[in-house]
Amino acid sequence: MSELGITVKKSENFSEWYTQVLQKAELVDLRYNVQGFIVHRPWLMRIIKNIYRLFEEELERTGHEPVLFPLVIPEENFEREKEHVEGFKPEVFWVTEAGDEKLDRRLALRPTSETAFYYMYSYWIKGWRDLPLKLYQSVSVYRYEKNTRPLIRGREFLWIEAHDAFATREEALKQIEEDMENSRRVIWEKLGIPFLFLRRPPWDKFGGAEDTYAADTLMPDGRVLQVSSTHDLGQRFAKAFNVVFLDRDGEKKYVWQTCYGPGVWRIAAALIAVHGDDKGLVLPFSVAPVHVVIIPIFYKEKDKGPVMEKAHRLKKTLEEAGYRVIVDDREERTPGWKFNDWELRGVPVRLEIGRREANGGYVTLARRDTGEKERVEDGKLVERIKAIEVEFLKNLQERAKRFFEENIVDAKSREEVEKALKERKIVRMPFCGREDCAADLKEATDGGKVRGTPLDLKEGDYGRCAWCGRPARMVVYVAKSY
Amino acid sequence: MSELGITVKKSENFSEWYTQVLQKAELVDLRYNVQGFIVHRPWLMRIIKNIYRLFEEELERTGHEPVLFPLVIPEENFEREKEHVEGFKPEVFWVTEAGDEKLDRRLALRPTSETAFYYMYSYWIKGWRDLPLKLYQSVSVYRYEKNTRPLIRGREFLWIEAHDAFATREEALKQIEEDMENSRRVIWEKLGIPFLFLRRPPWDKFGGAEDTYAADTLMPDGRVLQVSSTHDLGQRFAKAFNVVFLDRDGEKKYVWQTCYGPGVWRIAAALIAVHGDDKGLVLPFSVAPVHVVIIPIFYKEKDKGPVMEKAHRLKKTLEEAGYRVIVDDREERTPGWKFNDWELRGVPVRLEIGRREANGGYVTLARRDTGEKERVEDGKLVERIKAIEVEFLKNLQERAKRFFEENIVDAKSREEVEKALKERKIVRMPFCGREDCAADLKEATDGGKVRGTPLDLKEGDYGRCAWCGRPARMVVYVAKSY
Repeated sequence: MSELGITVKKSENFSEWYTQVLQKAELVDLRYNVQGFIVHRPWLMRIIKNIYRLFEEELERTGHEPVLFPLVIPEENFEREKEHVEGFKPEVFWVTEAGDEKLDRRLALRPTSETAFYYMYSYWIKGWRDLPLKLYQSVSVYRYEKNTRPLIRGREFLWIEAHDAFATREEALKQIEEDMENSRRVIWEKLGIPFLFLRRPPWDKFGGAEDTYAADTLMPDGRVLQVSSTHDLGQRFAKAFNVVFLDRDGEKKYVWQTCYGPGVWRIAAALIAVHGDDKGLVLPFSVAPVHVVIIPIFYKEKDKGPVMEKAHRLKKTLEEAGYRVIVDDREERTPGWKFNDWELRGVPVRLEIGRREANGGYVTLARRDTGEKERVEDGKLVERIKAIEVEFLKNLQERAKRFFEENIVDAKSREEVEKALKERKIVRMPFCGREDCAADLKEATDGGKVRGTPLDLKEGDYGRCAWCGRPARMVVYVAKSY
Repeated sequence: MSELGITVKKSENFSEWYTQVLQKAELVDLRYNVQGFIVHRPWLMRIIKNIYRLFEEELERTGHEPVLFPLVIPEENFEREKEHVEGFKPEVFWVTEAGDEKLDRRLALRPTSETAFYYMYSYWIKGWRDLPLKLYQSVSVYRYEKNTRPLIRGREFLWIEAHDAFATREEALKQIEEDMENSRRVIWEKLGIPFLFLRRPPWDKFGGAEDTYAADTLMPDGRVLQVSSTHDLGQRFAKAFNVVFLDRDGEKKYVWQTCYGPGVWRIAAALIAVHGDDKGLVLPFSVAPVHVVIIPIFYKEKDKGPVMEKAHRLKKTLEEAGYRVIVDDREERTPGWKFNDWELRGVPVRLEIGRREANGGYVTLARRDTGEKERVEDGKLVERIKAIEVEFLKNLQERAKRFFEENIVDAKSREEVEKALKERKIVRMPFCGREDCAADLKEATDGGKVRGTPLDLKEGDYGRCAWCGRPARMVVYVAKSY
C-alpha cells in the first residue's frame, strides 16, 4: 500500500501530488528518451478518448464534420499571415531531411493548422452555398516549449481544432458563442470543471486573430489554466489565403473565420487536479474507463465459487444497464491492496462481494466521491448506481465550484491585488486597459497576469484602476497562470 | 449529373475510376501543397473512424490496451536493431531543427514504432506478472515513399500498431493466430473483403522480424494489396532493447514479441475498390457514415408539409432503431441529382418520399447493392432494413469472393505463369523456395512477386517448381502488387 499511495496532501504540495498521481495511477511515463515528449499509458488514453468523444459529439451536433489534414505544413504557408508567423515560428519543429536527402524546403510539424486548412479553403469555398464550412480534426500538435509539464505544457500535446468559415461577421460572432456553449456543455456539465470565460486583452491574443476568447479554470495551487479557446479571425487569414466566395448579391467577398481549440490534454490535467483528492483520481462517470469495480473477497476455497459467481452475475447485470465494469480477480493481490489501487485510479463505484454478500442478497458498495459505504440489495443495484451517477457529478461540481468561487476576490487597490495574488487567489478588479499597466502589475507581483474581461460586462465606467489609479474602463480577472 | 458521375468503367480503367471516385465522392483532396501528403475529407474520415472502431473493438476484446507514444523517435533507438534500421532508414523523415535552434540529434518521424515501444518495455516489464503486455496505438506513420497513391502508399498514412510481449514462444505464435482472426473478423466478416493469409518469403519479411504473415486482397486491376500484417519478432528486439523478465522459475529471460499492423488506410482503399461499381462507392452498413438517406420529393408547395413531416418521422423511427439517417432537404438540388450524389457516396439505402408515399402509408426504397427498388409499408420499414443490412453484406461478400476466386489460377509451367500474370491473375504454383528463382520470375514477368505460402500448406513434396523446374518444397501465390 505504501508503494501505491500518494504520500503528500494535494492542498499542501500540489506540484508533488500531481507528479505522484501521474506516475502512481500509471497515467503517463516521463522516461521516454526525447525531452518534452511523454508516453500516454492505457488508463489516461481511455480517459482522453472519452474526452474526445464528448467534444466530438457536441461538434457534430452543431454541424461540424471530421477531417484530417497533413502533419506537415510548408514554411511558405506560415509566412502568409504576419502576426501568425511571428507568434508561432519560434516554437516550430522543422523536418528538413528524408532518407539521405535534404528536402528542398523546410516542413513544419503543425503547431496549429490554420495555414494548412485555409490553404485548402481557398479551393473549397467558391460560392455562398459552400458556407458555412465547419470542419474539425482531433490530433496532436507540436511546439518547442522550453518548460514542459505533463498534460499542461508539452512539445507534443493533444487537442481538437475546429476551423469555421462564414459569409458574414454576425455568423462568425455567433459561432464564438456556440463554441463557448460547447465548452460549457462538456467541461462543466459533463466533467464538473468550473471556469471563467474571458476575452483576452489585445496583447495576449492568438497570432493572427482579431480577438481571443478563452476558458480559464483554477488549479489547486492557485494558478489558472486555459482549457479551451476560440479565436475571432475576422478576415485576416481569408485575405492571406485568398478565401473568397461569390455572395448571393453577385459580389465576391472574403469569408469570416473562427477557430476553436478545446485543449483535450489540459482538460485531462484539470480533471485530475480539480477533482482528485489525497487518495488519487476521482473520475466522473462520463470519462471513467471503469464505472464499477467488483472486488471478490474470500479466504476459504469453498467460498470462492459463490463469491465469483455473484461477482460475474452482477457484472453482467450492470453491463446490460450500460456500465463499464470489471471484476478484479487478481489472486496475487489482497482486497485491501485492490481497494487502494482502484481508489488511486478514480473508479467511481466499488462493490465488495464476500461470503456474506454472496449468500445475503446484497452487496457492499463504496463510492469514491464521499468515501461512504452502503449496503444495497441486489435487486436495487442498477437503480442505486443510476442515482449515484447523478449525485456523483453533482458532488464534484459543487465541491469544485465552491473552491473556485472562494478563490476569486475583488480588489480595489494595489495592496489588495498584491495580497490576493500572494494568497494564490484570482483577483477581480477594475482596470485601465493599458498594456504597460498590465506589464507593471505582472512584474511587481511575480507573474500576476491580466487574463481578460468577462463577456457579460461591457466596457464602461468602473471607477479607478486597482493597479494604476487611472480611470477604469473595464473589469478584468488577474491571476498567475500555467 | 455529368459533373457528378464517374465517366469510366471500373472493369475497363480501374486506375482512372479510382481517381475519379476519390475526387468526386469527396474522399480526399490531392491539392495540398506538400507532395505525397493528402487531405482526408469528411466522408472518408467518417469511414476511417468506423474502420478504426471495428479494429479497436477486436483488439480490446482480445486484451489489448490503448496507448499513445511520441511521434518522434531518436536516431539512437533505430540503430539498435540492425535489420530494422537497414529496412527503414532510407524512408525516414528527420526533424533536425526547432525554433532557431539546430537539435543536438536527429529525431525520426515514426515510420513504425517498435523502437519507441520497446525502449519503454524494458522499464515496464520486470517479472512474469507483467506479461503478457498487449498495447496498441491508432496513429499516422511517415515514410518517404518515392511513388505515392492515395490510401495505398503515402508519405503519411493511417494504421493501428499493436505491440505484444510474451513469456514464451508458444504464446507469441498463438498471438499471430489471434491477429489473423481479428483481421478476418473485421476485413472479411464486417467489411466483406476477401483475402489470402500468407507467410512472406524470408527475403520479403519486415526488417527485424523472424517471420512476416500478411493478408493480401485483390484489387480490380489484378494487383494484390497487403491490408494487414503480423510480424513474429522472436527475441531480436528484446535483445536489442534488453527487455528481460524474471520468470516463475527464478531465471531472467528475454521476452518473445509480435507486432500487428492493420493497414487502416489500405483497408479503406480495398473497401472502395473491391465493392465500388460504375456509379461509385458501395459501403456496407458497418462503416457507412449514413445508412439511410431520405429524399423528399415534391413539386407543389402544398405537398411539402406532408412529405417533410413523413421524412422526419421515419428518420426518427430509424434512428431509434440504431441507424444513421439523414433527410436530404437541399432545395437547390433536384431529386435526380441527389439520387446520383448518394449513390456515388455509397449510402446503402435510399428512401423516396413523394406525395403518394406521404399519403399512402408506404415508402419507395432503393438499395445500393442491387439497385432494386421496392415498396415497403411504413410499419414494416425497420424490419425490412434490418433484413437488408444482412443481405447487403452477404451480397457484397459473395460478389467479392467470386471475383477473388475466379482470379486465382493454378500454374504448372513457366508459360502458364506468364499467361496468368499477363491476364492479371493471382497464380498459385509449386515453388522451389529459392530467392534467385523468385527474382528471375519477377524480372521476366515485369513484376510478378512471390507473395508467400498459405498457412495451411506445410512444406513437403509438391513436384517441380513451376518457374525453374527444380524440386518444389512449397506452394506459393504469385501476383503483381501495389
